[in-house]
Amino acid sequence: MDLLNKKFQKIGVENAPGQEMRQNTNEIKLRGEKLSGTPVDFSHGDVDAFEPIPGTLDVFIAGVHHGGKQAYTEYRGSKIIREDAALKLANFTGASINPDRNIIITPGTQGALFLAMGSTVAMGDKVAIVAPDYFANRKLVEFFDGEVVPIQMNYLQTTDCAGLDLTQLEDTFKAGVKLFLFSNPNNPSGVIYSPNEIRTIADLAQKYGASVIVDELYSRQIFEERTYTHLCAQNIIDPENLVTIMGPSKTESLSGYRLGVAFGSSKIIDRMEKLQAVVSLRAGGYSQAVMKSWFAEPESWMNERIAQHQAIRDDLLRKLRSVDGIKVRTTEAGSYLFPQIPNLDVTIQEFVKILRLQADVTVTPGTEFGSQFTHSFRLNFSQNHQAAVAAIDRLIKIMERHRK
Amino acid sequence: MDLLNKKFQKIGVENAPGQEMRQNTNEIKLRGEKLSGTPVDFSHGDVDAFEPIPGTLDVFIAGVHHGGKQAYTEYRGSKIIREDAALKLANFTGASINPDRNIIITPGTQGALFLAMGSTVAMGDKVAIVAPDYFANRKLVEFFDGEVVPIQMNYLQTTDCAGLDLTQLEDTFKAGVKLFLFSNPNNPSGVIYSPNEIRTIADLAQKYGASVIVDELYSRQIFEERTYTHLCAQNIIDPENLVTIMGPSKTESLSGYRLGVAFGSSKIIDRMEKLQAVVSLRAGGYSQAVMKSWFAEPESWMNERIAQHQAIRDDLLRKLRSVDGIKVRTTEAGSYLFPQIPNLDVTIQEFVKILRLQADVTVTPGTEFGSQFTHSFRLNFSQNHQAAVAAIDRLIKIMERHRK
Repeated sequence: MDLLNKKFQKIGVENAPGQEMRQNTNEIKLRGEKLSGTPVDFSHGDVDAFEPIPGTLDVFIAGVHHGGKQAYTEYRGSKIIREDAALKLANFTGASINPDRNIIITPGTQGALFLAMGSTVAMGDKVAIVAPDYFANRKLVEFFDGEVVPIQMNYLQTTDCAGLDLTQLEDTFKAGVKLFLFSNPNNPSGVIYSPNEIRTIADLAQKYGASVIVDELYSRQIFEERTYTHLCAQNIIDPENLVTIMGPSKTESLSGYRLGVAFGSSKIIDRMEKLQAVVSLRAGGYSQAVMKSWFAEPESWMNERIAQHQAIRDDLLRKLRSVDGIKVRTTEAGSYLFPQIPNLDVTIQEFVKILRLQADVTVTPGTEFGSQFTHSFRLNFSQNHQAAVAAIDRLIKIMERHRK
Repeated sequence: MDLLNKKFQKIGVENAPGQEMRQNTNEIKLRGEKLSGTPVDFSHGDVDAFEPIPGTLDVFIAGVHHGGKQAYTEYRGSKIIREDAALKLANFTGASINPDRNIIITPGTQGALFLAMGSTVAMGDKVAIVAPDYFANRKLVEFFDGEVVPIQMNYLQTTDCAGLDLTQLEDTFKAGVKLFLFSNPNNPSGVIYSPNEIRTIADLAQKYGASVIVDELYSRQIFEERTYTHLCAQNIIDPENLVTIMGPSKTESLSGYRLGVAFGSSKIIDRMEKLQAVVSLRAGGYSQAVMKSWFAEPESWMNERIAQHQAIRDDLLRKLRSVDGIKVRTTEAGSYLFPQIPNLDVTIQEFVKILRLQADVTVTPGTEFGSQFTHSFRLNFSQNHQAAVAAIDRLIKIMERHRK
């Protein structure tokens, strides 16, 4: 049990988004008055402010009425749903996807990540993980007894690329790293990897025979029509060494249905199906029906949604940048901001708790995304516009109270 | 990758229920005419023949309309749903369950099993598994790099108990086994452990400081009002060493919603939540709402369902027992039969494929439940009554063609 104790200490969820109500806050010392205002939970998007794709519930109900065939699908998902999704994703990314061999429907994008990592990471394997990147990436490596090798991303010092340290990436491949996992757009910074960065990642992985798992969860919500480069469409990496992950939980607000997909390497997808058989059998049968709504949104719905998010982003950026000592990169895609704040007289974990207790504002501490991000927090700005702006005012006030 | 290749070979799904359409059947040699009749898939229950609890879809729809609060719950599940489920399960089992500490909502009972095993099995751990028992039990031990120690259950030689070899169980505890996983009622044989067996399991686990995970998935569908003994109500084992698993996927036909629960040890439940955070975040948010229907079925609905299943069971038993050389224990609870058949001129895996190709009858080979069950198959008789009876006639005919 000692091995397990150690492992589970490393994958703690106390500071994870959505778990804040379970935090111990007895030791926190509060200063000043409580600030009133509409509570805003920036730890995830607000699906009441941005509702699911219109008509999804009807598609779900039709799935239930479809009966046993919909309830009990193959572990990799219903054949009809896979065929539909493969076609849409091939059109979207430019990759070729065989619905029988190259795609699996999973319980959320998280499910796809877990299955992909469980299918590729053996004990002692070194895995390259970007700093900062989605907090579960590191935890997955820990759970599967791998070793995290961090690759720095200088997102605050660059403007025309994500800022990944490509030299460091090559060095880690040289030193034996056989798997690189990263999110594009990057979670939490909201930057998009440049075409050159994506091609270099592909060249290096191919040169050193490494596998790549790329999480493209937010790749449909691109601001200012920036260029987005799908790794799977470059035809550089051996396709059997590449898995791409997506899902309708974010921009499309379908998180409550727990749906995701992974596509690419047939060998890895086969393993993922075997693993899914013992993890949860399949993505919820009736929920799978909802995949039909994805990439079939009413015309203009996506454009309007992106424009609304861009407007919120711009207001929050203006507020944050008006404060001396805050640095923040402009979100290029997705709904995250990852501001860096000045020195405070409390830790970032304490600051986040104080913020919740005194201002009803919930954000995620930067340390969830990499241990060095002790002066950053992530916020998901897919929120009611007015409430989000007011919440940032309160956040700044609380921050000023604790500035050193 | 070699380690992983080996591991994934051990957790193959080619013969697993629901995966039959992916089987390679090119090498199978068929004999005689195809037998016509309504196709019956005995690999799982037919939710079109036995529909979900009335009103569940309405409860789901209300969950969707509840919005973000229902979509984004704590990883261990919505507090309200946990409180409701804890109360119902405490009433049903006689155990005490704190909704904040002792229960987690999971994606199906499979999800609960996976999380419980991932929270208790470290590399090299010896885990006692009943032969026969649910096929995923063995695969989970393999996936987590444990070692399966089989405990024999003489279900064909006993009538007043399950027939577990309790001496063998004690010997394995003496030899260092620290975890025992079993299903009660047993899947695939349909037998219930006697009060004496349950109490002895509890005594032995407590004596040797072992943990126990008990899968009670079918404990609501008891025939002839037999005695069912909940291990968690015996107050013999340290409650921190016990986890009980249940769910509404079987008798209640809610498998399409992917819901399960685990309750018991707060330490193991805490770990399960951490693991769930990286596996799939949570059981589908909207689906969680459906838990309200569970244990709230219309009066008489459950009794009628049990009576209907008993009638199917009796007809199938009569058919099977009329054949010389077939041995089968009467199902005491749940919807499984696990007949033992005479020597054939094909392997059990081949027989199962032939049966599907020539009679449109799908069953699961016994070897999924333990390597020695080369003369058995499992069938789930939660099917259309008439179609099931006709399918058994076809099954017997195909068997006679291949009898040695």
